[in-house]
Amino acid sequence: MKTRAAVAIGAGKPLEVMEVNLEGPKAGEVLVEIKATGICHTDEFTLSGADPEGLFPAILGHEGAGVVLECGPGVTSLKPGDHVIPLYTPECRECEYCLNPKTNLCQSIRSTQGQGLMPDGTSRFSTLDGDPILHYMGCSTFANHTVLPEIALAKVNPDAPFDKICYIGCGVTTGIGAVINTAKVEIGARAIVFGLGGIGLNVIQGLRLAGADQIVGVDLNPDKKPMAERFGMTDFVNPAEVEGDLVPYLVDLTRGGADYTFDATGNVQVMRAALESAHKGWGESIIIGVAPAGAEISTRPFQLVTGRVWRGTAFGGARGRTDVPKIVDWYMQGKIEIDPMITHTMTLDEINTGFDLMHAGESIRSVVLY
Amino acid sequence: MKTRAAVAIGAGKPLEVMEVNLEGPKAGEVLVEIKATGICHTDEFTLSGADPEGLFPAILGHEGAGVVLECGPGVTSLKPGDHVIPLYTPECRECEYCLNPKTNLCQSIRSTQGQGLMPDGTSRFSTLDGDPILHYMGCSTFANHTVLPEIALAKVNPDAPFDKICYIGCGVTTGIGAVINTAKVEIGARAIVFGLGGIGLNVIQGLRLAGADQIVGVDLNPDKKPMAERFGMTDFVNPAEVEGDLVPYLVDLTRGGADYTFDATGNVQVMRAALESAHKGWGESIIIGVAPAGAEISTRPFQLVTGRVWRGTAFGGARGRTDVPKIVDWYMQGKIEIDPMITHTMTLDEINTGFDLMHAGESIRSVVLY
Repeated sequence: MKTRAAVAIGAGKPLEVMEVNLEGPKAGEVLVEIKATGICHTDEFTLSGADPEGLFPAILGHEGAGVVLECGPGVTSLKPGDHVIPLYTPECRECEYCLNPKTNLCQSIRSTQGQGLMPDGTSRFSTLDGDPILHYMGCSTFANHTVLPEIALAKVNPDAPFDKICYIGCGVTTGIGAVINTAKVEIGARAIVFGLGGIGLNVIQGLRLAGADQIVGVDLNPDKKPMAERFGMTDFVNPAEVEGDLVPYLVDLTRGGADYTFDATGNVQVMRAALESAHKGWGESIIIGVAPAGAEISTRPFQLVTGRVWRGTAFGGARGRTDVPKIVDWYMQGKIEIDPMITHTMTLDEINTGFDLMHAGESIRSVVLY
Repeated sequence: MKTRAAVAIGAGKPLEVMEVNLEGPKAGEVLVEIKATGICHTDEFTLSGADPEGLFPAILGHEGAGVVLECGPGVTSLKPGDHVIPLYTPECRECEYCLNPKTNLCQSIRSTQGQGLMPDGTSRFSTLDGDPILHYMGCSTFANHTVLPEIALAKVNPDAPFDKICYIGCGVTTGIGAVINTAKVEIGARAIVFGLGGIGLNVIQGLRLAGADQIVGVDLNPDKKPMAERFGMTDFVNPAEVEGDLVPYLVDLTRGGADYTFDATGNVQVMRAALESAHKGWGESIIIGVAPAGAEISTRPFQLVTGRVWRGTAFGGARGRTDVPKIVDWYMQGKIEIDPMITHTMTLDEINTGFDLMHAGESIRSVVLY
């Protein structure tokens, strides 16, 4: 079949919206009509050329929601008409990783996914001239139709609106999951969130959902304060306005350090401050942000010997097929909010505007509606 | 009263064995006759002058065992004749730290202990001329008699031999506790231990006790191999004999990385290798060794984002009054071994020989018998 897609033709170039060929689903695969997709910093990271593993030409996008149109042979858990969210971290429920309760990093299709290919080592996308176009993060939600492995699709509540729940495909789950799955925050905890962008806001609402007593937000931009407060932030700290060092200020504000700290900036100096503002004896610091290639984190080992723990999280520690449907339900039940974070919507033809808004810091999330 | 002690009169100077004055126990304090004491690297660290918090003159030693002679007013949990092990990490069971199940770092007497003083801010030791001599780590087991707070004494099985269980006061508990309390190693785990000195050997026997399937020991000195095998090491790796990089070699040897890795070297480059040879998705690395002042650990945050966890441990995460008596019982039951690690014994007058043996790498543990 043919479909319309925004194609990344090369690093640093705008996406080009065009008609492309899409082969139907092979064994274990599913054809999905994408109804909405968010534009995430990770798409920008790859499109800019900064991602050392970025490949072109490719159809980017990994934060979508849509409807199953057709299932390939052997697909048993989905049928046409099901509403689904694509998963860049799949959940095969059979590999060594899926069978270990400590991780969500299913490895069953990782090597082909990393090469922009389906598990059989080929691409379903091509130009009208027949030249292959690569998949991206196993999702390629910047196409109106895409093909994914069955294990990379979460079946969700069909009453949920696509234009909101697409954000659960990455940002919402990453932020809330970091709190619930990775940190396992307890009721009454004190926490600090560094960076109040889309991920940081979702960490904040995850902390509110988990019953945290104190939720400190740290950002250099005071304009972030009202939205963060709406999602549950109790204290705002602008490092530019703190006299002296930031870490002792935050330790004092949280009565000895926070039980949990989260880096949602990707800045390795901030990651260090996040660790060191965790409480002696038991404070845990969670790295969510993606650092520039080659950047390293550092600290004195004494910080760990005196009881702090340094962790990271990917996709919020969520097992997609199991956890993403629950997060959709939480949205439908009003336990979490998404609508205020979707600041802009646009058509596929306007998709480059979404990247411009991100660069300008004007959007929390832009969503493309097909 | 008067007692004999090895006094550290200044950084880098040999200990001087002399008669000193010892005041009796005040409220909440206990007079203990020390029967045996190990000589630990931490004593050497302070004596050498490398410890930025080292104070002189002081009576060092923190790895002892002895008998209660007299209890001050208000002491309820001990009586004369009880056998005890001094605790440099006390357990008050009342402070914010003791009441948090995630830590063993009781803070109730930390500030005075760090100043070489009893909780009331004074020292019980003085020279025969009346000049004060400081306590050390709240223990000062290089004196035949010493005074400690009640909360810094573990009451242990009176049948246990002092010359062996003194080692439980630091090295044994630190190594075994890192496995059991901090890492919480499960049956069947794969583990790597960096550094096969006294701490490393105790990590190894802790892993054996915990039921680990693979226990890899890493040391540049091949002479360490037989003793480590005796304590449970299954694979020995000499980094000098590995072609190429050590980390990928260890990852391969442990089938994808170890479930748990332990640094018992204090070298920050080794700490990094320990983290990076932990398994993607769930591997945890525990820092036990004390690094030189100012040294920093580093890694790429990607190591944590892909699921590795970086922790540290102090006194093996043990709550001394609760856990140390259990470890003494394990020794008496034959669950753990100590005897082969006590390679040298000596009198107090010979104590400087113990430091010489440590410098020469000839001892695992030297023990002074009073």
